[in-house]
Amino acid sequence: MREIETLLFANETFYRAVADQDMDALEGVWSVAVPVSCLHPGWPPLHGRDEVMESWRRIINGPAPPAIECHAATAHLIGGTGLVTCYEKIGAEWLIASNLFVREGQDWAMVHHQSGPVSQPPEGDEITPTPQAN
Amino acid sequence: MREIETLLFANETFYRAVADQDMDALEGVWSVAVPVSCLHPGWPPLHGRDEVMESWRRIINGPAPPAIECHAATAHLIGGTGLVTCYEKIGAEWLIASNLFVREGQDWAMVHHQSGPVSQPPEGDEITPTPQAN
Repeated sequence: MREIETLLFANETFYRAVADQDMDALEGVWSVAVPVSCLHPGWPPLHGRDEVMESWRRIINGPAPPAIECHAATAHLIGGTGLVTCYEKIGAEWLIASNLFVREGQDWAMVHHQSGPVSQPPEGDEITPTPQAN
Repeated sequence: MREIETLLFANETFYRAVADQDMDALEGVWSVAVPVSCLHPGWPPLHGRDEVMESWRRIINGPAPPAIECHAATAHLIGGTGLVTCYEKIGAEWLIASNLFVREGQDWAMVHHQSGPVSQPPEGDEITPTPQAN
């Protein structure tokens, strides 16, 4: 149970780092020991820490840094790794994501991330209406 | 090295089962021991073997069963699990996918799958031109 809690905490730390545009925190979240990979929607697959961290640098320093929130996270311990699936709310848009973590010392370190489209928000969440000009 | 080969073979077996509309093979590929999950593009997240297998049943028995091929697969062993990232070619469309496997006896069993959009095919592959009426 404690393992699941720390895993969900690591997942939250990742999203907070992106939302805060905190590159140091992102560098700390991602594994330094394991080959990492990242599949951003619409991007080619990124492999290795250099490519992955450069993508986050571009995203959080880009013209529209994501006001990202994690919702409805589900965590599983699988063969020594931790898998979290969750919704991502970015402004009024929703995505779904897979986040894979591995134990590094006392912490969970991120080794893989993919996010992609979803048809609707999680149950109980409403689509944020786009403000309309009167 | 042998582990990577068997992991890529398990990944190929998954795509062949989908392409062949072979539900028995798909049932064999997915784990029976670990909580499985699946994030199809545009679908809500699916959790548990019943939901996941039902989704594949709908997909392969649907009006347009996917002529799916796996390209440019990359495999990593991470903390007792096997992660494969690859491109999926479905007709003239390309997607990217994350496939997570865990050891079950002598085999790799699938525990998670997500696929989503990609901007272009893998290097060296051409986008299949859509036939144009004259």
